[in-house]
Amino acid sequence: MSQLYPASVQRLISEFNHLPGIGARSAERLAFYVLSSTREDAMGLALAIRDVKQNIRACQTCYHVTDSEHCHICTDSARDLSCLCVVELPRDVIVLEKCNAYRGLYHVLQGKLDPVAGINPENLRIAELLQRAESPAIREIILALNPTTEGDATAKYISDILQQQFPNLIITHLARGLASGIDLENAAMSSLNAAFIGRAVEPSEKK
Amino acid sequence: MSQLYPASVQRLISEFNHLPGIGARSAERLAFYVLSSTREDAMGLALAIRDVKQNIRACQTCYHVTDSEHCHICTDSARDLSCLCVVELPRDVIVLEKCNAYRGLYHVLQGKLDPVAGINPENLRIAELLQRAESPAIREIILALNPTTEGDATAKYISDILQQQFPNLIITHLARGLASGIDLENAAMSSLNAAFIGRAVEPSEKK
Repeated sequence: MSQLYPASVQRLISEFNHLPGIGARSAERLAFYVLSSTREDAMGLALAIRDVKQNIRACQTCYHVTDSEHCHICTDSARDLSCLCVVELPRDVIVLEKCNAYRGLYHVLQGKLDPVAGINPENLRIAELLQRAESPAIREIILALNPTTEGDATAKYISDILQQQFPNLIITHLARGLASGIDLENAAMSSLNAAFIGRAVEPSEKK
Repeated sequence: MSQLYPASVQRLISEFNHLPGIGARSAERLAFYVLSSTREDAMGLALAIRDVKQNIRACQTCYHVTDSEHCHICTDSARDLSCLCVVELPRDVIVLEKCNAYRGLYHVLQGKLDPVAGINPENLRIAELLQRAESPAIREIILALNPTTEGDATAKYISDILQQQFPNLIITHLARGLASGIDLENAAMSSLNAAFIGRAVEPSEKK
């Protein structure tokens, strides 16, 4: 079979296909969308990608994404400066900000420990976290890593160092237990286990 | 809530969100992929989009996509020059080429009639089809429009003109009937109806 597409269309399909969650069929559909859209519309995406790669960098304080030296959270004077929330990636900051349950500062590790993949403590922003923890303003550090094997291991590693070096800091982690909307029948064993360990006393009816 | 993302990230998410089949959540995930990928990888997609919009145009004969004046199908001397297959869009050419059941030439209408959306005969490549039909080399024109209301109406419109202007041409359309793998129970009424109308005599067992 001769080549189905002109070379530049083939390359566009292949570039779309490299994106996460975009299979071969979706990549073709996206390429045809680009082909059929106006030059302005199509170039909008191309220019947006270029601008992001040109303008976006890591915040010099917390390593969240920003287009300035410091991100809009670190420079927000309304935030609670006594609390640091440690997360793996910038997208975790976004999720927590959307949830609106936290008003302190963040520290983005830029990943999680994964020795098999060659990601060791020196590849993450752990040294920078320890430096921030020295500030007398900080009272609590919340470990908000993902509830996975690597996330737990990373949290344990950081927790041990923090407790040793800063015995006066309060080190916490996000609660584990049943996820809202997931029946007991469908909950993971580890979630059920965590729900028993962390069970809370019911509030009394009569005040 | 303050703005969650730096402006350029917000714009990239919105550009991804404009693509077909990419919802808000996927758009965020793609933007974070671009953020975390190397500059070379991310710019690969941006440059591929630019190149497609710069290099790709419609074949001057059949209106399929090409990076030259004429597409690789029209310039392929091994193709059957006596048959034209009329399709709506370039992606239909790709699908039919993949299926490998046809070795003639194509004619891409660049859409289908849709008066409600303001798409009338003069907006499609119908005049160009009639011009090609004048060639004495052409013996058959296969109408391979999509089996939809608009596709059928477009095929009927073209068929009427062709039969009137070129009574010696054979005008055909793709067979309708049961789609492979779809049970009778799940087949559309129109497919079942077409399957009865187009029913074929079983080949005899004894030769």
